[in-house]
Amino acid sequence: MHGGTSWRDPPVLDFSDNSNPLGPPQALTALIKEAVERGVYLKFPANAAEEVLAEYEGIDVVAFNGATEALTALMAYLKPKRVLVEWPNYTDYSRIASLLGLQWRHARGPEEATAGDLYVVSNPNNPTGRYLKRGELAELAKRLAARGAKLLVDESFIDFVGGETAAPDVPVAKSYGKLLAAPGLRVGAVLGMRDERLMAPWRLNSIADFAVYHLGADGLRKHRAATVAYVAEESPRVQREVSKCAEVNPSPVHFFIVKGPTPRGVKVRPLEDHGIPGYRVSIRTPELNRILVEAICREVR
Amino acid sequence: MHGGTSWRDPPVLDFSDNSNPLGPPQALTALIKEAVERGVYLKFPANAAEEVLAEYEGIDVVAFNGATEALTALMAYLKPKRVLVEWPNYTDYSRIASLLGLQWRHARGPEEATAGDLYVVSNPNNPTGRYLKRGELAELAKRLAARGAKLLVDESFIDFVGGETAAPDVPVAKSYGKLLAAPGLRVGAVLGMRDERLMAPWRLNSIADFAVYHLGADGLRKHRAATVAYVAEESPRVQREVSKCAEVNPSPVHFFIVKGPTPRGVKVRPLEDHGIPGYRVSIRTPELNRILVEAICREVR
Repeated sequence: MHGGTSWRDPPVLDFSDNSNPLGPPQALTALIKEAVERGVYLKFPANAAEEVLAEYEGIDVVAFNGATEALTALMAYLKPKRVLVEWPNYTDYSRIASLLGLQWRHARGPEEATAGDLYVVSNPNNPTGRYLKRGELAELAKRLAARGAKLLVDESFIDFVGGETAAPDVPVAKSYGKLLAAPGLRVGAVLGMRDERLMAPWRLNSIADFAVYHLGADGLRKHRAATVAYVAEESPRVQREVSKCAEVNPSPVHFFIVKGPTPRGVKVRPLEDHGIPGYRVSIRTPELNRILVEAICREVR
Repeated sequence: MHGGTSWRDPPVLDFSDNSNPLGPPQALTALIKEAVERGVYLKFPANAAEEVLAEYEGIDVVAFNGATEALTALMAYLKPKRVLVEWPNYTDYSRIASLLGLQWRHARGPEEATAGDLYVVSNPNNPTGRYLKRGELAELAKRLAARGAKLLVDESFIDFVGGETAAPDVPVAKSYGKLLAAPGLRVGAVLGMRDERLMAPWRLNSIADFAVYHLGADGLRKHRAATVAYVAEESPRVQREVSKCAEVNPSPVHFFIVKGPTPRGVKVRPLEDHGIPGYRVSIRTPELNRILVEAICREVR
């Protein structure tokens, strides 16, 4: 089960998609149209977006067709004896571990790790929003190292808090589709390493490759700055509003967990598969957020 | 080293790209434009193209962002003790094996296989064009099974000879970007199985997903029929022309190996990395093929 809607789903008031509430960078649509006009999909990808992502991050990156592919390659590359998924968390890590023939289980903390384990966290966490600063993450890596275990971090939501990557000290995978509000483009990366084994001959589809390359590191930085500013103001405001009628799990990002029955008339992300008696919602525009608050509060009245 | 040119490369007379010489299906460009107009990249992929690919193949498929991703997942899933790449062959199989931590080496035939090996063939072979019919492939699988080894087939070029897939009897990975003449779209699949471990939450980018879904199985079949007819007539003709001035390795597909010095003024795929003293060329339109023949023959005069 995942949040978000596909291009085939009927239109819906969707608060389950934790893509950027600001939408895509202004230039993105024009760049995608230009890519199509030029017929770049009839040519091979140039692996050019990766240069822009490296400049944006300030470290080496290898691009992948989404975070899923980046995580698959990275877990294969790290070859742990076992995968410990810090729980609650994104649900695809365990599928990837299974595909790679790795044992896995959920864990509540690093004290459950033993030698040869790979401990997987998302930072900020999906679905809780918990954010560990670079120092706290280094501390976690140290605690794991003392037990003979390693840390893998998924930073798909770090741009929403303007956080600093843990790479290259720690292996990092990341989705850029969330920041770009374009999950259908499939843009992900492994950060902090350039091992040839990770480098498929063609790493993004040509349309995404062209668009991200021409958007540039500056375009990404500007969009991140606007996003951080919006989330920092609007998310606490919506959380305060919702908390007047339902229990809210405070979060520094644009999504947060609400305890209680699922509201009607809006799409949210139920969390039964996480064992959480509640659901995840993501903020959108102030107008839509008003509808969300009303839907949640109507449910509990 | 790979054939083809990226969207960033300067225009060139390219005979190194072994995509479809007929170009893309007529409807494809309009469908990609429609996908972009509708903003499908702002939504999640619907994994809808996969339904069309399954109908086209007549068996179950799982879609991937290109054959590379399909092969990575399939090799991880099969977990062999060692990978034997029948040589000459596509060069990325060994990178994937290395990424997965699998031992690998090149092999000249199934008699080199031992228990636990995965024997990888491309059918038709890239770069030689050698094509094994379904019965011959079943025979090969049997010989391997007798040695405790398994077969994996890459059928990225089978549509160019109108061949029948070896799946589901044998694990098969495939690229559709070659048939569609759209290698930048990244459309691949694993054929003949639907194991959940192979199924990433989102499997193609939304633009490709939308376009292939709406192209439909009929659209694919029509394009295959036209392609098979063109290749069956034009490829032997060009091979005959070239063979008047250079040694040609006969091939039933749209690409073939020419022995001798690389021609100037046109882009071909040199095969030094395959240990072959020659190069691979792919046919294009009759007009362009005339230029190719002239370039090759000029070189040896």
